[in-house]
Amino acid sequence: MSQTIEKRDPAPQELRSLYAVIRDELGQVDELLRRELTSEYPFVDELAQHGFRLGGKRLRPALVLLSGQLCGQITDAHLKLAAAVEMVHTATLVHDDVLDEAALRRHLDTVNARWDNETSILLGDYLFAKALCLAASVEGSYAVRSLIEASRRVCEGELRQVGACGDYDLAEAEYLEIIDGKTAALCACCCEIGAFYAGASEDDTAALTRFGGKLGIAFQIVDDVLDVLGDEKTAGKSLGTDLVKQKPTLPLIRLLGQSSPDQRAEMIEILSSTTDHHREALWPWLKDSDAIEYAKRKATHFIEEASAELANWPDAPSKESLVGIARFVIDRRQ
Amino acid sequence: MSQTIEKRDPAPQELRSLYAVIRDELGQVDELLRRELTSEYPFVDELAQHGFRLGGKRLRPALVLLSGQLCGQITDAHLKLAAAVEMVHTATLVHDDVLDEAALRRHLDTVNARWDNETSILLGDYLFAKALCLAASVEGSYAVRSLIEASRRVCEGELRQVGACGDYDLAEAEYLEIIDGKTAALCACCCEIGAFYAGASEDDTAALTRFGGKLGIAFQIVDDVLDVLGDEKTAGKSLGTDLVKQKPTLPLIRLLGQSSPDQRAEMIEILSSTTDHHREALWPWLKDSDAIEYAKRKATHFIEEASAELANWPDAPSKESLVGIARFVIDRRQ
Repeated sequence: MSQTIEKRDPAPQELRSLYAVIRDELGQVDELLRRELTSEYPFVDELAQHGFRLGGKRLRPALVLLSGQLCGQITDAHLKLAAAVEMVHTATLVHDDVLDEAALRRHLDTVNARWDNETSILLGDYLFAKALCLAASVEGSYAVRSLIEASRRVCEGELRQVGACGDYDLAEAEYLEIIDGKTAALCACCCEIGAFYAGASEDDTAALTRFGGKLGIAFQIVDDVLDVLGDEKTAGKSLGTDLVKQKPTLPLIRLLGQSSPDQRAEMIEILSSTTDHHREALWPWLKDSDAIEYAKRKATHFIEEASAELANWPDAPSKESLVGIARFVIDRRQ
Repeated sequence: MSQTIEKRDPAPQELRSLYAVIRDELGQVDELLRRELTSEYPFVDELAQHGFRLGGKRLRPALVLLSGQLCGQITDAHLKLAAAVEMVHTATLVHDDVLDEAALRRHLDTVNARWDNETSILLGDYLFAKALCLAASVEGSYAVRSLIEASRRVCEGELRQVGACGDYDLAEAEYLEIIDGKTAALCACCCEIGAFYAGASEDDTAALTRFGGKLGIAFQIVDDVLDVLGDEKTAGKSLGTDLVKQKPTLPLIRLLGQSSPDQRAEMIEILSSTTDHHREALWPWLKDSDAIEYAKRKATHFIEEASAELANWPDAPSKESLVGIARFVIDRRQ
């Protein structure tokens, strides 16, 4: 099993060069993750190891480490916290495997397809609890409190999103609030604890927290654009599912907002249908509208705001990497 | 919605008299729970309120409060922690609604039947995160750390149990280890934090922790016996599901262990079949064996051990209630 893990290639080329400045530490984080996700009970071990492999870009650990390096020094606490946030992220991925019925149908290698709903739910819960134990093992309780509060906001955002499905009047501001919870809260937390455990001032910690939050919002907007664009091969996951689930994301909100009442009614009829070819059916309108461009511009705007939060720091490799990651978030195709 | 909540009658008569000594405080806990599970977002609010109603016996909050009273005084921290442990318990119930496919079929009023898998999983996650936020709001981090570690053990126990399904060679000792995690860990945590936040000595805190753990083990054994006995009307939930899921519980482990190789093979064939009448098919053997009696004796043994942990405390209403709850655990029919 450990062999499979060693073979794993966590991040695309662009990210790997941005991670160069924390390469050793990311290696230590992976080592720690592997140790944490080893269990003396074979079935638990098999599952937890699988959970480990679910991670991909290691974006959240990188945010913890780079924020730490920017504000001072990477310590043992940073390594533990970087592993903890990745485990929290993995827990949400495992639960998403159950949530996302499209993935259920199309993917073969989710925990859910290999085992079943029961196992996925328990594994997600287990990974989350393990993550919190690890975060609680660092000095003080700042990190564990921050992580708990971020997790609460993630769940609240996800629940609000479920409640908003089929609500085609959802305002852009509310969409932004929802993704500020479901995606941005954990990114903000990563930067916050990274800064805090490097002894950053309150102001610096707050600035980095805002950096992480804005980056997270941009990340989710781009995810929503990619879902609508629908190049599954590049993204490595099933796409167009937001439309099938009638999830109002920014491109759709913009498209509906810019359409005539008649067009709007026609689109809503498509969205409400029980087929799963919504993306294809909406595509003619999407490509003729400014919806995708508008959403991309919004994401870029948040990334610019995020980068501006770093203005007070002098140039440094860790700052360059953070800015580079921010740029990657909008340029990425997966 | 609050009206539905006020009408709720949380515990059977026997428990209500045992709770008399903490009646006011339990009322405050319910008030706190209601406040905590109110959300400004309508959909989140509706779900969280439903989660609130899922609670029943309020056994875990009672353990926190009575342990506090036994060791000193019930403080604000106890009220918050009592609400937090009930929320953790509710979170596991919500996830169980998804896990338990039998419940899915038979029950109409689970979150899962009303909404869907996605909502149940998110609601469980949300309740858990909210519970931890509340536990983190009391002074110091003892409670939140204890609750996180207990949750980890609960999940580990649950995963081990899934891994043990269909394993008819499971030893009684391993069964006990599994339920020591999945059920006893949270009960132990309730007594531990109750004692700690009343300023109990390390020894007293440890004794009460053991009390809670043994009570929890007995509780689970009785649950497993009730599942095999199968009086669904009394229990208010679907039964016989452990056998259908091939979950090796104590009555079954004993039955198989006391049977001839031929009988054993026949029983395993029944257990492995795809029908869901396992309980009825095994009943002739079960009633002629000592399996149920044996499991009940084991539960009684753990309850006696639990009560013995309280020997060092002088007689007091809170001690009487704890001993009474221990007795209720083995006498209960639901």
